[in-house]
Amino acid sequence: MRLTVHRKAHFNAAHRLYRKDWSDEKNFEVFGKCSNPHYHGHNYELEVAVTGEIDPETGFVMDLKRLKTLIYEEVEVPFDHKNLNEELPEFKDLNPTAENIAVVIWNKIRKKLRKNLALKVKLYETPRNFVTYKGN
Amino acid sequence: MRLTVHRKAHFNAAHRLYRKDWSDEKNFEVFGKCSNPHYHGHNYELEVAVTGEIDPETGFVMDLKRLKTLIYEEVEVPFDHKNLNEELPEFKDLNPTAENIAVVIWNKIRKKLRKNLALKVKLYETPRNFVTYKGN
Amino acid sequence: MRLTVHRKAHFNAAHRLYRKDWSDEKNFEVFGKCSNPHYHGHNYELEVAVTGEIDPETGFVMDLKRLKTLIYEEVEVPFDHKNLNEELPEFKDLNPTAENIAVVIWNKIRKKLRKNLALKVKLYETPRNFVTYKGN
Amino acid sequence: MRLTVHRKAHFNAAHRLYRKDWSDEKNFEVFGKCSNPHYHGHNYELEVAVTGEIDPETGFVMDLKRLKTLIYEEVEVPFDHKNLNEELPEFKDLNPTAENIAVVIWNKIRKKLRKNLALKVKLYETPRNFVTYKGN
Amino acid sequence: MRLTVHRKAHFNAAHRLYRKDWSDEKNFEVFGKCSNPHYHGHNYELEVAVTGEIDPETGFVMDLKRLKTLIYEEVEVPFDHKNLNEELPEFKDLNPTAENIAVVIWNKIRKKLRKNLALKVKLYETPRNFVTYKGN
Amino acid sequence: MRLTVHRKAHFNAAHRLYRKDWSDEKNFEVFGKCSNPHYHGHNYELEVAVTGEIDPETGFVMDLKRLKTLIYEEVEVPFDHKNLNEELPEFKDLNPTAENIAVVIWNKIRKKLRKNLALKVKLYETPRNFVTYKGN
Repeated sequence: MRLTVHRKAHFNAAHRLYRKDWSDEKNFEVFGKCSNPHYHGHNYELEVAVTGEIDPETGFVMDLKRLKTLIYEEVEVPFDHKNLNEELPEFKDLNPTAENIAVVIWNKIRKKLRKNLALKVKLYETPRNFVTYKGN
Repeated sequence: MRLTVHRKAHFNAAHRLYRKDWSDEKNFEVFGKCSNPHYHGHNYELEVAVTGEIDPETGFVMDLKRLKTLIYEEVEVPFDHKNLNEELPEFKDLNPTAENIAVVIWNKIRKKLRKNLALKVKLYETPRNFVTYKGN
Repeated sequence: MRLTVHRKAHFNAAHRLYRKDWSDEKNFEVFGKCSNPHYHGHNYELEVAVTGEIDPETGFVMDLKRLKTLIYEEVEVPFDHKNLNEELPEFKDLNPTAENIAVVIWNKIRKKLRKNLALKVKLYETPRNFVTYKGN
Repeated sequence: MRLTVHRKAHFNAAHRLYRKDWSDEKNFEVFGKCSNPHYHGHNYELEVAVTGEIDPETGFVMDLKRLKTLIYEEVEVPFDHKNLNEELPEFKDLNPTAENIAVVIWNKIRKKLRKNLALKVKLYETPRNFVTYKGN
Repeated sequence: MRLTVHRKAHFNAAHRLYRKDWSDEKNFEVFGKCSNPHYHGHNYELEVAVTGEIDPETGFVMDLKRLKTLIYEEVEVPFDHKNLNEELPEFKDLNPTAENIAVVIWNKIRKKLRKNLALKVKLYETPRNFVTYKGN
Repeated sequence: MRLTVHRKAHFNAAHRLYRKDWSDEKNFEVFGKCSNPHYHGHNYELEVAVTGEIDPETGFVMDLKRLKTLIYEEVEVPFDHKNLNEELPEFKDLNPTAENIAVVIWNKIRKKLRKNLALKVKLYETPRNFVTYKGN
């Protein structure tokens, strides 16, 4: 029996959307006020979904306490109260759009999960804008 | 890398559920108080989900500013503060159930999206009743 | 010991903002698209707050089951799936703004409460627009 | 045209996570404070999703009033204000994890639906922990 | 300049409403299914509001990190995943209605706050039922 | 008849908590990770409450379209997608705590309201931390 377990978490961070190899004008043309050089920020809400078989012994797909800890260590500690562009090595040359942040988070959590578990992440940048990614 | 970007919007509208070719009694029997001839209304909440490849240059699946504008022009302007039965040509001969409204919205947005993008809409009629449609 | 107990309820209704003694132009000038003659509608969310002493025997300010029933009879039954302008006698000559609806609801519930209980109502017309009224 | 209709419901219940054939120490080691022998409880939020063809006559996938009644009879009446471990025969020998509760609810509703309708349930144990199940 | 700072927290607990000095019939008559002898439970959501002067040096009414810790120690640790009737000395002879739980929480936090700060608590038993208490 | 009308809005901004006249160590000691020199950010949610008499002619305390515009001009345009410390003159020498931001917003809106209307603002820094201010 395959089920999906979901766990929510959040982090607050600053970012700006821009490419170093573009002029400020080009960045503003494409990314608008999101390219503000002084940064802006968000309360990112994250939902992590893990799909697998129920363990008949425990009744768990995976222990949500372990998933909570994994999200804390892989996402909340490194991302919370940080400037994504300036302080996260993953975004040194990668534009921190919601899409790219979701892919980075997915890759970090994927490495820590057992192979037989499927992973999907949903990332809210604002209550009205969000993205979902389930790998390739 | 395929991701899904989501954008929320809303509109307030009046409607009633009924078929012109049925008697009032038959309409009431099938649609209950939703068939009230004087109409009732809802704050419809809409989530539009677009799936496609990340553009490696921008880090976007599609520019959410453009998706916001598209929803505004195709849904919010024509539907907001309207009587769906009386003022929307799409529902002249189509019962404005949540299901049919979702299909109408999906068709309107589908026409404006590039072919390689997949589309799904979720429409909340109330916080407890909602529908999802992703085409055929 | 005075405490406040709160109970949420909701109803869906159609309405339009207008005055019969004004022209359509004047109504549109003042009330904008809310004056649409074909009506529009909302999912109204209602919070009723009752303040009084805790009954030391039951630990209740008032039995919330009774408050739930009272809101059902006084508000949900008469208002839900109705056209406020056309079907509610209270709005025959009263513009159904959120403010006026809140006052009407407050007056209806006030009559059914014991004198030593204070009453406040909060009415959401949309998730972004709401009013509160606690009598005079 | 296949669409999905969704209906939310809720129930409040007590439970504990434990296996009768394990010692208290083993139960605490695996389930932590969720194994408290005196029980704890939750406001469970349930979303039931039914997928099928739109009936061209009514514009419904299925009548949501009927789905609401079905959830009430199959889930809310038997589960609400109950102790899942002590009062529900389904959990006499089954650990009431969110996963197992979701499977039990899915099986109960599945039996009452027409064969050509697909079913998915989402169960929130807390606003941050939830599971989804769509059968096998 | 007096402002109010608010902090949300939550805990999950089992309880039943009843008086030891009443018969089961009397308890059921007054408290209905909430008097179930096997208990039921809730995800309690708590909002703590502290009013005082802004400290011109820090710009804080009080450090929210300290308020978060205080709520954790005084409420979350003793109440979370507990049976309020069986395991909390405060409810040994006090019916754990939302009203009484709010008063108990208010008293516990009040003792730990500086005298010049005012305190109000809001406690959600369910998303539709909640109480507020600000002392006497 | 005095009522209160409420309008919600939001803006996304970067900030850090610190005092220029303190060392980095002192700032970190008092403000913790909120003092990160690279900034972090939030989706600020704002509720503006205006209390006054109902105008018997319109049924409005004040036109919510005007309140919406006022909030847009006084708060959303200057604050959205900005770095509060670096780009807002109000915070040049004022620590942008939620308390101080609420006072600044209150003062800006207060100047634009008629004298006989009372004003209160509620500002959410995160879904769990928020402040309210109603002037002196």
